[in-house]
Amino acid sequence: MKNVAVFGAGRIGRIHSSNLAALPGVKLKYVFDPVPAAASDLAQKYGAEVSSIEAVLADKSVDAVAICSSTDTHSDLITRAAAAGKHIFCEKPVDLSVPRAQACADAVKAAGVACMIGFQRRFDPTFNDASRRLAAGDIGNAEMLVITSRDPGAPPVEYIKASGGIFRDMLIHDLDVFRWILCADGDEAAWLSATGSVLTDPAIAAAGDVDSTAVTIRTRKGRLCQINTSRRAAYGYDQRFEVLGSGGLLQCGNHTPTEVVQWDAQGIRADKPEAFFLQRYAAAYRLEMEHFFDCLQTGKPFKTTVADGVAAQKLADAASESCKSGLPITF
Amino acid sequence: MKNVAVFGAGRIGRIHSSNLAALPGVKLKYVFDPVPAAASDLAQKYGAEVSSIEAVLADKSVDAVAICSSTDTHSDLITRAAAAGKHIFCEKPVDLSVPRAQACADAVKAAGVACMIGFQRRFDPTFNDASRRLAAGDIGNAEMLVITSRDPGAPPVEYIKASGGIFRDMLIHDLDVFRWILCADGDEAAWLSATGSVLTDPAIAAAGDVDSTAVTIRTRKGRLCQINTSRRAAYGYDQRFEVLGSGGLLQCGNHTPTEVVQWDAQGIRADKPEAFFLQRYAAAYRLEMEHFFDCLQTGKPFKTTVADGVAAQKLADAASESCKSGLPITF
Amino acid sequence: MKNVAVFGAGRIGRIHSSNLAALPGVKLKYVFDPVPAAASDLAQKYGAEVSSIEAVLADKSVDAVAICSSTDTHSDLITRAAAAGKHIFCEKPVDLSVPRAQACADAVKAAGVACMIGFQRRFDPTFNDASRRLAAGDIGNAEMLVITSRDPGAPPVEYIKASGGIFRDMLIHDLDVFRWILCADGDEAAWLSATGSVLTDPAIAAAGDVDSTAVTIRTRKGRLCQINTSRRAAYGYDQRFEVLGSGGLLQCGNHTPTEVVQWDAQGIRADKPEAFFLQRYAAAYRLEMEHFFDCLQTGKPFKTTVADGVAAQKLADAASESCKSGLPITF
Amino acid sequence: MKNVAVFGAGRIGRIHSSNLAALPGVKLKYVFDPVPAAASDLAQKYGAEVSSIEAVLADKSVDAVAICSSTDTHSDLITRAAAAGKHIFCEKPVDLSVPRAQACADAVKAAGVACMIGFQRRFDPTFNDASRRLAAGDIGNAEMLVITSRDPGAPPVEYIKASGGIFRDMLIHDLDVFRWILCADGDEAAWLSATGSVLTDPAIAAAGDVDSTAVTIRTRKGRLCQINTSRRAAYGYDQRFEVLGSGGLLQCGNHTPTEVVQWDAQGIRADKPEAFFLQRYAAAYRLEMEHFFDCLQTGKPFKTTVADGVAAQKLADAASESCKSGLPITF
Repeated sequence: MKNVAVFGAGRIGRIHSSNLAALPGVKLKYVFDPVPAAASDLAQKYGAEVSSIEAVLADKSVDAVAICSSTDTHSDLITRAAAAGKHIFCEKPVDLSVPRAQACADAVKAAGVACMIGFQRRFDPTFNDASRRLAAGDIGNAEMLVITSRDPGAPPVEYIKASGGIFRDMLIHDLDVFRWILCADGDEAAWLSATGSVLTDPAIAAAGDVDSTAVTIRTRKGRLCQINTSRRAAYGYDQRFEVLGSGGLLQCGNHTPTEVVQWDAQGIRADKPEAFFLQRYAAAYRLEMEHFFDCLQTGKPFKTTVADGVAAQKLADAASESCKSGLPITF
Repeated sequence: MKNVAVFGAGRIGRIHSSNLAALPGVKLKYVFDPVPAAASDLAQKYGAEVSSIEAVLADKSVDAVAICSSTDTHSDLITRAAAAGKHIFCEKPVDLSVPRAQACADAVKAAGVACMIGFQRRFDPTFNDASRRLAAGDIGNAEMLVITSRDPGAPPVEYIKASGGIFRDMLIHDLDVFRWILCADGDEAAWLSATGSVLTDPAIAAAGDVDSTAVTIRTRKGRLCQINTSRRAAYGYDQRFEVLGSGGLLQCGNHTPTEVVQWDAQGIRADKPEAFFLQRYAAAYRLEMEHFFDCLQTGKPFKTTVADGVAAQKLADAASESCKSGLPITF
Repeated sequence: MKNVAVFGAGRIGRIHSSNLAALPGVKLKYVFDPVPAAASDLAQKYGAEVSSIEAVLADKSVDAVAICSSTDTHSDLITRAAAAGKHIFCEKPVDLSVPRAQACADAVKAAGVACMIGFQRRFDPTFNDASRRLAAGDIGNAEMLVITSRDPGAPPVEYIKASGGIFRDMLIHDLDVFRWILCADGDEAAWLSATGSVLTDPAIAAAGDVDSTAVTIRTRKGRLCQINTSRRAAYGYDQRFEVLGSGGLLQCGNHTPTEVVQWDAQGIRADKPEAFFLQRYAAAYRLEMEHFFDCLQTGKPFKTTVADGVAAQKLADAASESCKSGLPITF
Repeated sequence: MKNVAVFGAGRIGRIHSSNLAALPGVKLKYVFDPVPAAASDLAQKYGAEVSSIEAVLADKSVDAVAICSSTDTHSDLITRAAAAGKHIFCEKPVDLSVPRAQACADAVKAAGVACMIGFQRRFDPTFNDASRRLAAGDIGNAEMLVITSRDPGAPPVEYIKASGGIFRDMLIHDLDVFRWILCADGDEAAWLSATGSVLTDPAIAAAGDVDSTAVTIRTRKGRLCQINTSRRAAYGYDQRFEVLGSGGLLQCGNHTPTEVVQWDAQGIRADKPEAFFLQRYAAAYRLEMEHFFDCLQTGKPFKTTVADGVAAQKLADAASESCKSGLPITF
């Protein structure tokens, strides 16, 4: 039995708690949240105790912590949990600052603990199956990746101001997908160009950010990646990618609530995509947590490490800089 | 907290146990199975106790039983559980004999307990959404229903011999879908014609059954239903229906493991349907159990009752008779 | 150069004229229609002459006639054209009376001319490709066929009264598809059951017909066919079939005007099917006429003969009778 | 009756000849090709005469010429035809040199003749319907365009050497689509970045070209366009675009030969896209020629003019330069 503490009882903390509570051999022992009511609600639901960071880290029976708190607390919690000898699951991003993220990687390594970063898209059944087929050679050598990534609507401007900007907040996932899909053989980004616009809400411009972006990356091996994102899609949460290989194409579509198709005078109408990430990635969040504990128990390496978090962060920094300057970045 | 006992630790008993163990406010207290090892394996997994039918029914703390044992035990267990004042979830069919099924309905009514029959298709997100849209008038008045229902492969002939025949074993679900979709307003079957063939395995003919069937039903209001089934589909488990209304069509497709589409020299290839009923109806089984306990707690009526079980059984009997005689049945 | 005369300058006569005028090596020489203005309009468009039946049949330079006039004139024109030594293309049906249709077959045979019946669905690129794959063994041995055939709306009741009823007027095409797809190896209908209702317009009942039908056929080899039809589909002209084989399924979808899909708050919406038969079968009508002249020039046999017309007519008669009596027909 | 001469009896000349020969009111009078046999074959097929450029331009009865000859002859033929007072249909591109293309525009204007450039994608039923819906406001204001454009395989290296490079040869069409879809309200490219690689054949690198490209354009209004192309797609000719608007998305898929879907043990398999441009754009070529003569007869303006040709050429030059330098171009 592995004992786990969850730091952060917000939306994502509740998802992870529900998933780890359902895992055989795992016990949700503690919950911490700066808002006591949030912590106690969540703890009660799964028979856990409310605790503090200090107490959790001091408890020898705790094997692992799941960091689901706000982004600005991640690096501190990783460092402290590593020092306390706890294995770590941490939501993305490691930190908005690449040096601090790198320091986390160093701390984890020095402590000899395992640390997994929550890039849940790698566990999405559709995306993961595409990755598996690519690795199996089903479409030959990967050549080109087109990622479409759109939110149903922009978050509050206050959120945007603290987010580090769209590249670090939203595209970090897409940049990780780029590395996962196009760089699986050790290839790396060689050239990156990004641009962006404000098309949905002038308040986003006032906050110094953009809401629509277009990023292109060329790798050392000459592979090409294009990412298009928007903070708003009238039809919901749009998460797709297509990878062209020398022998074919793998196209990853959205997940839908049902397979009902309505035929009427207006046309042949299928469901919109799932509403947002909690619905679309429900299976991914569950499989990600299974993977975390499976690796802890078997010693297998994580599919997503702090190094992946740092690498994605570096690409996000580059994209942010390129978008501002209008000039490409070469690595 | 509702205490529940599960009778039967086979494939479907394990599914239901897993789903009810995950429900807040529900405790899997006892497991019974004639094979002790099966019972103890399942009980251990969810922290339940192995028990006997007699002890379960005598225990006042047990609120409900889930009957997941073989078909020939259903009517006996329903009758005894009802007499003991337990609420009942029972897998389909109630009984292969309509009189015995009717006796169960009477016993349940006399005892004043609630009894739900496991027609899980009514809880499938796709099928259920079609039913909801039909009720909402999205395609006007229902006129015609076409059901395609195919298993990936035939069960062992020994199973077929004990199954009551393809109409009672396999089409019972489709006949329930017919009643659910076309008879929601109180309409009823008026005329039924069935035919069948052995196309996949001569051993099925030797066992006195068919493996491919075509059933047509006309209702009192003149609605038409066609059901086509096969014990074998080379591409997997095929569960679809289409309902034509005065204002359009609702088409219910299969569920697939992923949304990956592979484009290559052979064509544009999407996933096959889910492999079999455990995969296809995973969500349905979960939602069905939620519904059972939700109704117990709120007093809302079940969506599928013993009366539905009896009615589907009568149609299955009629189809079986029509297939043998080559003549239609009028009701 | 083959000289051709067209009898009938209505909707279908104009289609066939346009297609044969575009064929290299074919000259539309004469047009006849009881309405002189219709004949002269059509003749003028393609540089043909208006003529009479007698004059056309007496003209030695005329190689072939295309009979596109009303159904009640078909058998007379076939007989006379055959006697005059002309090759014949005739729209379906040969005749509403099976004996008269058989007499046409005899007359054609006696005269040694070639006569093709316009079952254009056999030339639809989608349906034809399914037939080709089935013959190539791509899905193994054919077992079950499900045909969905719906018109966008009912024709005027006056038309219905003269049509011979829905089975002879509308299902004749579907019954030919049954023979083409399931009986390609010489198999034949052994048992047929039909039922029907009036669901769209009581005037159709008053005219002695039905508007919605469900037909089931079992062949000598035990293959099963289900046909569902309606005179009305709110979403347009619906022409699909699916054939299950021992190794898989071939599913033939509708043709659509475009491949635009609109994603918005209401869902993911593709085009409705083509509006009606002239649009859906535009390619089929063209390819059918190519086939007619290709066979005339090369001596290859037609894909659809008078014998096919007679056979489909017999099935339509049987379905009509079964629907009236409520009892199956055995052959 | 309009008399037309076709210059060039190659692949595209034959397509256009076939389409214009089928137009009522149009007569294919002359064919010229430097290869006499090619000219006479084509002329004979449609009852035209073989002629020379000089004789055609001197013949007062010729209303229009269709220039289907090699790219390097376009500007000379446009200029001479304009001087001779002939209306002009010319295949893309106007000329590989922007100044020469601009000179053609000037010559056409000075002569007062009409000149249409063959950007056939604007006449593709699917693409054209998306353009129509966008103009109708069906998805609100256009924001982002993603174009996928892939050939089934690279042309011979000798062709590539003379082609002006992939941007002028292949992307010119995509750049015209960008202008057509995103700049319909007068918007214009403000910033363009292109990159490319050789991934399919080193001989293409040796010829100084690339075979895989990624282009991004930002307009004055901040709209974003991403174009991805490859000279090779193992699954055939891939021609799609998606345009995101404030109210939804319009997705344009490929056209397929049939609507057959095969379900078997390998999956659910639809047709590959049409093989190459002659098949995919068959309808577009037909509709384009109809448009040309419709405009000549009614005086309506062409949908694609020499100015469009020049504008696309400028974008292709910019993309070519950006790809070479690795730096963006601002306009």
